[in-house]
Amino acid sequence: MPIALASPSRDLEFPARRLVRLPAPLPLYRGGVIEQAVVAYESWGERNTADDNTLVLFTGLSPSAHAASSPADPSPGWWESMIGAGRPIDTQRFHVVCVNSLGSPFGSSGPAAIDPATGRPYGAAFPELSVEDIATAGRQALKALGIERVAGVVGPSLGGMTVLAYCVQFPEEVDNLISISGATSASAYAIALRSLQREIVRSDPGWRNGNYEPGRGPRMGLRLARKLGTITYRGAREWDQRFGRQRVTDSIGVTGDARPQFEVESYLEHQAQRFSEIFDAHSFLALSRAMDEFDLAEHGGGSLGAAFAAFRGKPALVIGVESDTLFPIHQQRELVEQLRAAGASVDFHAFPSVQGHDSFLVDLPRFEPAIGEFLRQH
Amino acid sequence: MPIALASPSRDLEFPARRLVRLPAPLPLYRGGVIEQAVVAYESWGERNTADDNTLVLFTGLSPSAHAASSPADPSPGWWESMIGAGRPIDTQRFHVVCVNSLGSPFGSSGPAAIDPATGRPYGAAFPELSVEDIATAGRQALKALGIERVAGVVGPSLGGMTVLAYCVQFPEEVDNLISISGATSASAYAIALRSLQREIVRSDPGWRNGNYEPGRGPRMGLRLARKLGTITYRGAREWDQRFGRQRVTDSIGVTGDARPQFEVESYLEHQAQRFSEIFDAHSFLALSRAMDEFDLAEHGGGSLGAAFAAFRGKPALVIGVESDTLFPIHQQRELVEQLRAAGASVDFHAFPSVQGHDSFLVDLPRFEPAIGEFLRQH
Repeated sequence: MPIALASPSRDLEFPARRLVRLPAPLPLYRGGVIEQAVVAYESWGERNTADDNTLVLFTGLSPSAHAASSPADPSPGWWESMIGAGRPIDTQRFHVVCVNSLGSPFGSSGPAAIDPATGRPYGAAFPELSVEDIATAGRQALKALGIERVAGVVGPSLGGMTVLAYCVQFPEEVDNLISISGATSASAYAIALRSLQREIVRSDPGWRNGNYEPGRGPRMGLRLARKLGTITYRGAREWDQRFGRQRVTDSIGVTGDARPQFEVESYLEHQAQRFSEIFDAHSFLALSRAMDEFDLAEHGGGSLGAAFAAFRGKPALVIGVESDTLFPIHQQRELVEQLRAAGASVDFHAFPSVQGHDSFLVDLPRFEPAIGEFLRQH
Repeated sequence: MPIALASPSRDLEFPARRLVRLPAPLPLYRGGVIEQAVVAYESWGERNTADDNTLVLFTGLSPSAHAASSPADPSPGWWESMIGAGRPIDTQRFHVVCVNSLGSPFGSSGPAAIDPATGRPYGAAFPELSVEDIATAGRQALKALGIERVAGVVGPSLGGMTVLAYCVQFPEEVDNLISISGATSASAYAIALRSLQREIVRSDPGWRNGNYEPGRGPRMGLRLARKLGTITYRGAREWDQRFGRQRVTDSIGVTGDARPQFEVESYLEHQAQRFSEIFDAHSFLALSRAMDEFDLAEHGGGSLGAAFAAFRGKPALVIGVESDTLFPIHQQRELVEQLRAAGASVDFHAFPSVQGHDSFLVDLPRFEPAIGEFLRQH
């Protein structure tokens, strides 16, 4: 099935990526419809004969569906050591599907993808995206593949929010959930930071009020917004431990006052340049705003307990990190309390990792056993 | 003495401000000289007959010398409840002098002030500013006023750094020190955030490579940088407690996606607009960079103990806040250890305030008794 995709990220190739075109229009949670919606995904392991071994993985804001390597794409994925034969998410047991979020520029329908009605990228014309839509698009893609229920739904960060949106919207189709550094709604602090990131992007003259040419958007704004993200994704103490006051020994051709003086500045620059080259500004704004607007209690008429009611008796794993300021540990505790009050059977880990929100990517000696053990038991 | 001042902040008046022109050129710590340097200050209380009751107060990056009201200027200062007759910094006992930092746009020599050699603002021509220079300029101003030694040196944030730079450079002229949420050097995390703030300012087309007309600088960049500052000056938990997910009931004339949705966004906008109207971009960059480059150990040949050696036997008060990520509590503990190892007599408070770095401005029920008690005892 040939599907046209805008490519703001020409240097990215996803040889293992597959695309599903949803057979019906996709109505969005806050209004609007996506005709001929596409969902990109990668998968590992095989569907068993009972077809009850699919584990769905949702991602944070920035990664693609390339969570792990495979014969078709041997490059390491963003959760490489977590997924594979004999690994915590064991592909000898599970058929793992990592969904590229609706709205993301890495294959699924979103602002950077071609609107089949116009032949041009949706851009600002893409309807308001919600976390619920990311979950629903993933679920519709599974249905299109003939998968009617899933053994589990897993995700970190925005993916953790998506896990909750999935389970609350389709509880009868899910056996268990794993929410990692997620939340039932965004905190004021996280809203403040993301709102500022979006404003930084829109303040770049290259934003052109949203009417930039594909691939020629506000790169400077994206670069600065990404630096802010990178700073806040990690723990303050970790920055000090990793970089201290080390001076740069090289720099990136910048001179004068703008020249990075400290290693930490140089590191941020490398990270942010890469992101600004591969991400799309409209996608960034849509996903960022979706996180701020997410409020799971809407599904229970304002009550989280009511929202979780259909999850009674099901196993859940919640993991949070004490140094995480964006999805803070008190939000993890509240999530656990609400799930338990609704009758779910919850395992909870509050890890003392120093790496902040991003710990799930790096503090693997803590995360791998916790996730592996939960999956073995359920 | 008529002194010309550039005024990027025409709506600001400081009726109680006084200006001292230093009688000799001011050599700067990292090279360069300021000819005819000016130091702005405000003062409260009277010099006693022994002339041994002057307390010098240094400020954070953004405030002026207007720390408290006075008959000449009844508007509340930034530390209004801390300074006055019968208050913790008791003006019935002390002659209090709040120094406007060298480099700041509020009266002292700095990038926004008129260079007497050219009749135009220094702008980018102002030499590299250091925290040491802020301390030295304050000390030279006191000398010009005939004050040869001080009863104490007090300051929060950048002012806390300045206190340390003062005491290490002129230990024989100081009886005691109060460092509040300061540090002997900037942490990697604080460097990362400030570096990003500066880059945001320089990325505004209004920056014009530093050649903007006075009063017409990169306001958007300053506004965004200030938002980042405001977010990180306070504690994450406090944002959640103050704002939660309250929606805005009014907004500031912005429409569409850019319209603030949450109260926390609206609050940040109000704060940042004000700052961008009164502050100067060159001043901001100079003060910000000075904080990153500050490293007190330079004065002890790399050893803080050696830097503090001349403070043996003197009383010191160090206050820090557990929720402060910019000047974190572990830096306060290290400062206390180094001062104690050098033989200073240190009182230390680690406050559990939720307001982060800015706690000294708002958690006054904790800060006032601690400062008042220390000053009564010494």
